[in-house]
Amino acid sequence: MADKELRRVGIMSVGDMGAGFGDVLHQNGIEVYTCLDGRSDLTRLRAKEAGFKDTPDFDSLVSQIDLFISVLVPSEATQLAEDVAAAMIRTGAKPAYVDANAIAPQTVRKLEAIISDAGANFIDAGIIGGPPRTGYTPSIPCSGPDTAIFETFTNHALNVHKVGDAVGQASGLKMVYAASTKGTTALWTELLTAARILGLEDALRSHLGEGAVFAAQQRSIPMMPNRARRWVGEMEEIAATFEGVGMTPKMLLGAAEMYTLVGETPLADLTSRDPQPTLDEVIDALQHRLSP
Amino acid sequence: MADKELRRVGIMSVGDMGAGFGDVLHQNGIEVYTCLDGRSDLTRLRAKEAGFKDTPDFDSLVSQIDLFISVLVPSEATQLAEDVAAAMIRTGAKPAYVDANAIAPQTVRKLEAIISDAGANFIDAGIIGGPPRTGYTPSIPCSGPDTAIFETFTNHALNVHKVGDAVGQASGLKMVYAASTKGTTALWTELLTAARILGLEDALRSHLGEGAVFAAQQRSIPMMPNRARRWVGEMEEIAATFEGVGMTPKMLLGAAEMYTLVGETPLADLTSRDPQPTLDEVIDALQHRLSP
Repeated sequence: MADKELRRVGIMSVGDMGAGFGDVLHQNGIEVYTCLDGRSDLTRLRAKEAGFKDTPDFDSLVSQIDLFISVLVPSEATQLAEDVAAAMIRTGAKPAYVDANAIAPQTVRKLEAIISDAGANFIDAGIIGGPPRTGYTPSIPCSGPDTAIFETFTNHALNVHKVGDAVGQASGLKMVYAASTKGTTALWTELLTAARILGLEDALRSHLGEGAVFAAQQRSIPMMPNRARRWVGEMEEIAATFEGVGMTPKMLLGAAEMYTLVGETPLADLTSRDPQPTLDEVIDALQHRLSP
Repeated sequence: MADKELRRVGIMSVGDMGAGFGDVLHQNGIEVYTCLDGRSDLTRLRAKEAGFKDTPDFDSLVSQIDLFISVLVPSEATQLAEDVAAAMIRTGAKPAYVDANAIAPQTVRKLEAIISDAGANFIDAGIIGGPPRTGYTPSIPCSGPDTAIFETFTNHALNVHKVGDAVGQASGLKMVYAASTKGTTALWTELLTAARILGLEDALRSHLGEGAVFAAQQRSIPMMPNRARRWVGEMEEIAATFEGVGMTPKMLLGAAEMYTLVGETPLADLTSRDPQPTLDEVIDALQHRLSP
């Protein structure tokens, strides 16, 4: 598909990820539309900074764009697909719909049905890495029978690449990759906290020594607390992914509970502008949460 | 305590770990006793090879030893403590009792009560590493109010070291350390199997790249299948350990379910004399178990 066919993109969320996509696309020749009806002044400011154009409602939004990207917390993905599908049906506009959320393959297939029933092309996508910004793009796998229009994002500084013809594969890749990073971090956060409470931290560290996994977790755990609340729903989607292929959901449901616990500590309120806590401070905060 | 006071040790299990302890102690000047009543010919042969002396019953066993070591699967630890305590009460013999099993601190404290009620000194211990053999000892943390007699094992080629005065600490250390190794391996086995089933293995590997955790798991997972069945109970004890300090048991209950699943594949029947499977063969076996 020629690049000129992709000119206008719609993004609803203007959180870190949505704003990052909007900003990079805007900087690279794409008009980015959103709908800020009922949103806060802070959100409006952020959207303006990222170059978003406001539209009054979903009907107006879908009528002006070639492609819509859904990127928000997993629990809101289905409602958004239903709202956009309804606007497509009312207006007759059929922009391609990209779901880039961290959700299980079987959930994505339900969204595909909603969008296909409205007559539009559904594209599955995942985001592996942080929000796009000038000079940085995460890995963005996509999958589905017709992903060409979304693949033209490679002309706009975004690393979109196809991993398969089936809806569910891109999300599945996001799920198994996130299990490897955030799942491992949840497990190590739990065991290091248990060691602290049991008075065994020094003894454990002397046994862990210079092990590669411990070294990696010493870097990963401090980066986690202010993202932990957002990760709860993602862990539940990974649990559903594993259950969907016949394996236990429990490890990832436990990871969701660990991130819920971290979300109950003051460290979860840190912003990306605050200094990152140390590993000791993370474990301290959890110990205090468990034994105030 | 002078070394001459430790001359005779009792060990019930003659599995890999028990036989390893017996063999190393026997090679290093200790008389090792057991009770083979009702055991198989293979077990008798193994015990003989490791230099164990047989006794007709528990009463005879406890009467002849200075120290008893319990090392077996977690689910059998309580019954053995009750049986040995009963023999102590019947005979009046009070050898020190070392529980070296992979069990939760709160479970160990119940065993301490059983042995203390029989009038004997209870010592908590853990085994971090493989079975002792000539030239190799695992790390053997111990804890409790009076661990001196067990610490004399350092004179007999075993790396026993005290980690605290409280019963539960040595077991706690074993638990958190095992969570870090076997817990991580369970998680990665699950996510690599999910990637295979979803047709995403190559895409996942290209994202994992040369990551330290993946590299470590490529070594760890192939060593796991023929030990997986034994690890199920250990994962459940770690789950109880985490729950005992106020955190979720689910990640480790999920690990127990993963090792149950691995235990249902033919690879679980390999012996230590068989060639180790490759990572691909482990994932193949799990995929076949899930989608025969």
